[in-house]
Amino acid sequence: MYEGVVQDVIDELGQLPGIGPKSAQRIAFHLLAADPADVRRLVNALTELKEKVQFCRTCFNVAQSELCRICVDPRRDQTSICVVEESKDVVAIERTREFRGRYHVLGGAINPIGGVGPDDLHIRELIARLADGAVTEIILATDPNTEGEVTASYLARQIAPMGLTVTRLASGLPMGGDLEWADEVTLGRAFEGRRIVNA
Amino acid sequence: MYEGVVQDVIDELGQLPGIGPKSAQRIAFHLLAADPADVRRLVNALTELKEKVQFCRTCFNVAQSELCRICVDPRRDQTSICVVEESKDVVAIERTREFRGRYHVLGGAINPIGGVGPDDLHIRELIARLADGAVTEIILATDPNTEGEVTASYLARQIAPMGLTVTRLASGLPMGGDLEWADEVTLGRAFEGRRIVNA
Repeated sequence: MYEGVVQDVIDELGQLPGIGPKSAQRIAFHLLAADPADVRRLVNALTELKEKVQFCRTCFNVAQSELCRICVDPRRDQTSICVVEESKDVVAIERTREFRGRYHVLGGAINPIGGVGPDDLHIRELIARLADGAVTEIILATDPNTEGEVTASYLARQIAPMGLTVTRLASGLPMGGDLEWADEVTLGRAFEGRRIVNA
Repeated sequence: MYEGVVQDVIDELGQLPGIGPKSAQRIAFHLLAADPADVRRLVNALTELKEKVQFCRTCFNVAQSELCRICVDPRRDQTSICVVEESKDVVAIERTREFRGRYHVLGGAINPIGGVGPDDLHIRELIARLADGAVTEIILATDPNTEGEVTASYLARQIAPMGLTVTRLASGLPMGGDLEWADEVTLGRAFEGRRIVNA
């Protein structure tokens, strides 16, 4: 509907996740009216994203050099690895400040319908990291959904023979929520995982 | 939270209208995993947007040369001008195929609270376009809200002495809607503008 470039921008923005044609149009006109320096900063950031960002050779987290900043940090505990699906999950866990070990980013979860099998994930590299015996605990922090659960079970079976402690993040009621609004699977898990309260 | 460039992209995307930090993160990771050619197309489109797009010298619609494609089209009726706030409105009206004249894009609406007065809009240029007497009808198609109504009244007063026909788009119930859900202002306007039905 628009002339050349304006329509190109709307089409390209409309390909991004969560941006429909109306939002794409709104953003295009926002950029048209914006300070050229602001648009240049956005363009540069997008260009550098593909040029400079790589994946850590050890844990496959996003990194700006061969290793990510967590893998190169000597203060991180070398005895535990937290296994997650994506780099986003690393950020979420870092925000809690609960974990001082290192990570392993699988790059997804096992999903036979979507055509993702164990060989499509960085599982072989995880097993290789455990070979020297320095790691004593593996925390399986894949998503609490079907694919994440299947992936966690698969990994637990693979790692079991190596004699490490393998744990899974607790499932239960989210903090700050209302019990009556919890879905039955979550509430069921909360019952299953109930703990003795010390008086 | 992320390393350098990834965080830069999230920050820059988060500045765009309608994109919060979560969507910005989702888009950044989508682009990280995307085909480099797709990202290059987006980057090029954004770069060209600021380099190539200008505003029509006559009507201030977005254009890829000095004049927009509507102003240069000899088949468009030279006797009527439809006055709108933004280029987006031109596209919306073009989609109806109801109007064959030309446009004038004001670049906004009068809004004293927001600090937008008549001199901040392309009103002087509109008056200049009417000087040679070729235009016989002005259709005021500013938005049906307070600012749009104020702007339409202002323009009507300015244009009245020139002896042109000045019209305003009809207000009333939106097609496909339910009468009971119409707000009272819309329903009031629909009564005010009621028309005789020929049996």
